[in-house]
Amino acid sequence: MTGRFITFEGGEGSGKSTQIKRLASALQQRGLDVVMTREPGGSPMGERIRGLLLDPTAKLDPVAQLFLFSAARRDHVTALIAPALAQGQWVLCDRFADSSRAYQGAAGALPDALINQCEAAAVGKTRPDLTIILDIAPEAGLERASRRRNKGTKADAFEASDLAFHKRVRAGFLAIARDEPMRCAVLDAERPELTIHADILALCEARLKKDGPCV
Amino acid sequence: MTGRFITFEGGEGSGKSTQIKRLASALQQRGLDVVMTREPGGSPMGERIRGLLLDPTAKLDPVAQLFLFSAARRDHVTALIAPALAQGQWVLCDRFADSSRAYQGAAGALPDALINQCEAAAVGKTRPDLTIILDIAPEAGLERASRRRNKGTKADAFEASDLAFHKRVRAGFLAIARDEPMRCAVLDAERPELTIHADILALCEARLKKDGPCV
Repeated sequence: MTGRFITFEGGEGSGKSTQIKRLASALQQRGLDVVMTREPGGSPMGERIRGLLLDPTAKLDPVAQLFLFSAARRDHVTALIAPALAQGQWVLCDRFADSSRAYQGAAGALPDALINQCEAAAVGKTRPDLTIILDIAPEAGLERASRRRNKGTKADAFEASDLAFHKRVRAGFLAIARDEPMRCAVLDAERPELTIHADILALCEARLKKDGPCV
Repeated sequence: MTGRFITFEGGEGSGKSTQIKRLASALQQRGLDVVMTREPGGSPMGERIRGLLLDPTAKLDPVAQLFLFSAARRDHVTALIAPALAQGQWVLCDRFADSSRAYQGAAGALPDALINQCEAAAVGKTRPDLTIILDIAPEAGLERASRRRNKGTKADAFEASDLAFHKRVRAGFLAIARDEPMRCAVLDAERPELTIHADILALCEARLKKDGPCV
């Protein structure tokens, strides 16, 4: 039995972690075995690399960032995601390879050939069955992320980038969705949480029920 | 003014750090401004990544290793090596990109295309002027490294690999030297320290004196 691999992508403050929790809960209520995870991180080594990447004092250029994200991703895939899918679990992941395409590729201006080669080596055959792109204007998303910080968290190295950077990130995600419409769905993330959640459940229903457990 | 970039490569226990110190001292006596550094490491972020890579409890596959080495190398090049060379310093580095070719490529069986793309992205135009490959039979080198450990250091993740792995590493270094004879020189590292040092000085004299300060 093979599980399902669903990734959540989008800019800062787009509500990914909120929606992952809601979807996980809904799938669990249907009796599915669900794993929630995140990038960078997810595995013990991945979490150690996450600490380097998000350190606000780190001055890494996009190439060094791409390599660190790719290392964390490779470890995450081999240590957690691929084994979970092989056991029939549904893996919901907060960010995956599309974030490297958007942040280091579209926004960081790294060439597609490098991005693609690193992605292929890091993920192998472990590609998402469905990618939910939560789309939000950077101004609104950064405002949300900033409110979250007021509760005690600090701006990480990426949240601290300028608005033009975040606009390129958003354009990068939308370009991925245009290129891979069968895998990706773009949802307006400025609507109410429950409305977005209903859309995500409907997408899972429509796209993921063949050959396996139905949601 | 541009300095010179000399890298030292070879298996465990081949005497790289000993020879770097001797060469640095000899060059400094000639009035040259010398920087000694090492990989993985060399820059603050590089050293943090080194801690992950050499952790004996880390279970990283060759792909994840390649990405971590490449991230550390990129940071090392941009933060330390390239600026030092631009200031006219002579940079002596204990391991560089050839170690990825030998350890993750030749010994770890990663494809050349991936190794080459990561190397190009990590180093850019910062390529060694001279690479000294200290060649030693793995049995002898590991025995030396083991004696060094008895003085209080532990086997790192690479020293702990099996003999067949270290034989592939050695063959990898020798293949690099065959492919790039103008950059690389292979020296028999089982001879006395001072004999090897004299060879290295002679190589610097022969290959590096054009267009700049003469050793």
